[in-house]
Amino acid sequence: MASTTSPIRIGVIGYGNLGRGVEAAIALNPDMQLAGIYTRRPPAQLKPGNADTPVYAMDSLLSHKGQLDVLILCGGSKDDLPSQTPELAAHFNLIDSFDTHARIPEHFAKVDQAAQGGQTTALISAGWDPGMFSINRLMGEALLPDGATYTFWGKGLSQGHSDAIRRVPGVAGGVQYTIPVEAAVEKVRSGVRPELSTREKHRRQCFVVLQDGADADAVRQTIVEMPHYFDEYDTAVHFISAEELARDHGAMPHGGFVIRSGNTSAQSKQVIEYRLQLDSNPEFTSSVLVAYARAVHRMAQAGQYGCKTVLDVAPSLLSPKSAAQLRAELL
Amino acid sequence: MASTTSPIRIGVIGYGNLGRGVEAAIALNPDMQLAGIYTRRPPAQLKPGNADTPVYAMDSLLSHKGQLDVLILCGGSKDDLPSQTPELAAHFNLIDSFDTHARIPEHFAKVDQAAQGGQTTALISAGWDPGMFSINRLMGEALLPDGATYTFWGKGLSQGHSDAIRRVPGVAGGVQYTIPVEAAVEKVRSGVRPELSTREKHRRQCFVVLQDGADADAVRQTIVEMPHYFDEYDTAVHFISAEELARDHGAMPHGGFVIRSGNTSAQSKQVIEYRLQLDSNPEFTSSVLVAYARAVHRMAQAGQYGCKTVLDVAPSLLSPKSAAQLRAELL
Repeated sequence: MASTTSPIRIGVIGYGNLGRGVEAAIALNPDMQLAGIYTRRPPAQLKPGNADTPVYAMDSLLSHKGQLDVLILCGGSKDDLPSQTPELAAHFNLIDSFDTHARIPEHFAKVDQAAQGGQTTALISAGWDPGMFSINRLMGEALLPDGATYTFWGKGLSQGHSDAIRRVPGVAGGVQYTIPVEAAVEKVRSGVRPELSTREKHRRQCFVVLQDGADADAVRQTIVEMPHYFDEYDTAVHFISAEELARDHGAMPHGGFVIRSGNTSAQSKQVIEYRLQLDSNPEFTSSVLVAYARAVHRMAQAGQYGCKTVLDVAPSLLSPKSAAQLRAELL
Repeated sequence: MASTTSPIRIGVIGYGNLGRGVEAAIALNPDMQLAGIYTRRPPAQLKPGNADTPVYAMDSLLSHKGQLDVLILCGGSKDDLPSQTPELAAHFNLIDSFDTHARIPEHFAKVDQAAQGGQTTALISAGWDPGMFSINRLMGEALLPDGATYTFWGKGLSQGHSDAIRRVPGVAGGVQYTIPVEAAVEKVRSGVRPELSTREKHRRQCFVVLQDGADADAVRQTIVEMPHYFDEYDTAVHFISAEELARDHGAMPHGGFVIRSGNTSAQSKQVIEYRLQLDSNPEFTSSVLVAYARAVHRMAQAGQYGCKTVLDVAPSLLSPKSAAQLRAELL
């Protein structure tokens, strides 16, 4: 399976944080080749990290059908992927990072219909959550049926909560970090299977730049009482300058833990923990997309058409190494 | 796939720590049924945890061929599995926990030949190392190609090192714990990718009961200087009474970490950590065997014959839940 000699030709759809991360990740995988970036912007306006990477208008995508093995869709889950993934799955093998958990079954159904019709392989919802965390939730349950699963996120920048802060009247800019409560993590690790409230699991930390003349107390109050986003958490609001925001909060760190705590007998507690500590959330998601694009290519070559998720992918399909090499080196 | 209504009928081969653990794990999985324990001892001498579990002589195994979906082999990697797994793979779907890393390719070749001939599915080397740790080594490499992988073991009881202690003249009994050096783990977690010597990664702790009249200093010297086992480590030797050994060191805890530290760009470090903290090493290994026995059954039903390893198994095959349920609940 790993004896394929010509590189896997990847088309990147969209060139924001995720697209740039995919470009960087492909450069680290010698069995893959970035065949082109496809954009809705005028192609000449787009400056890829590698000046030699071809940039094309989205309109030309269909005419390149025979030259692309897998598309990596780098658009957003709200506006781009719900229509784009099924549309393109009718013609191409592809992968996306659709991450609206509640809508995955609906997205799956649409993509599956398109991929079955087009005889393509389309993997949705790759990344780390959904993605690597999902795999670990599944395996935790399967290995320790008598147990409880805990997911903690952070410390990390939450895009949705940062957006919510920025919509508050009087706010000129800001970011929000989700932080797991260390005492809760330790309790879960101890194997006692605690019941934890929302407030006990995570706290929220906001760095906010005020507009000229805004009332700091009113802004703080509006943030900490915001329903769904902040009211169920302990939230700290720090006011900083626009310069500090730009200097100290430009990165997009994230991560978290999936912990499965269970018993195999009355006296034996067993704890499985999977942890990510990411300096760059989009770059890691991109790396996951690229590794799973390799699996998509192989599944398509094997005639395994339709919509797939990370839960359907055998680990060996992710590695450029041969099965024999994997058994000898990594098993 | 999960719509199978009749339980998966499991035959357990051998009834030591692992066999007992498998019996307990099957009881936690309602879609599985322990059809029988097969032993080389006189069956009447064996007292299963559940008195209703049928116990048979090994001789009768072949005559039960149509009544068993998957065999779980619970023998040892040194004396039992090298011959038993290929012999039985000619007739049955099965799984073993063969854990002599260096001999896995050779074991695989023999089992594959038997399984291809018998049109069976035979999964070897399931457990946690090889097993869950192998999966995480593979995925770490695939997701972060520019990186380094670190495996730490412990704190845990090492059977091989405990046996080595017990062979020292003057020793009446003893156990050895392998302990990861916390400073090394922290350094790896920080993402700096340190080069670590054997001594820097793990230390060894021995609890030893002396024979009457034995020379404690001589025993300590022999242990700490023992080639391969102890000479490259910082080893602490504690002398205890036979009562203390029995009271405080009867459990078989183990675990460890697989950490992949890598960069997705010059400025972005990413760290993936998988950790096991096990009160009972054999019971956890048994739980892994039982979950992968479910996958073996499904792969056999799908006509995927031959020898497999955990690296070849899609996560969804491990769960009793349907694919749609997994997507809705866990993705």
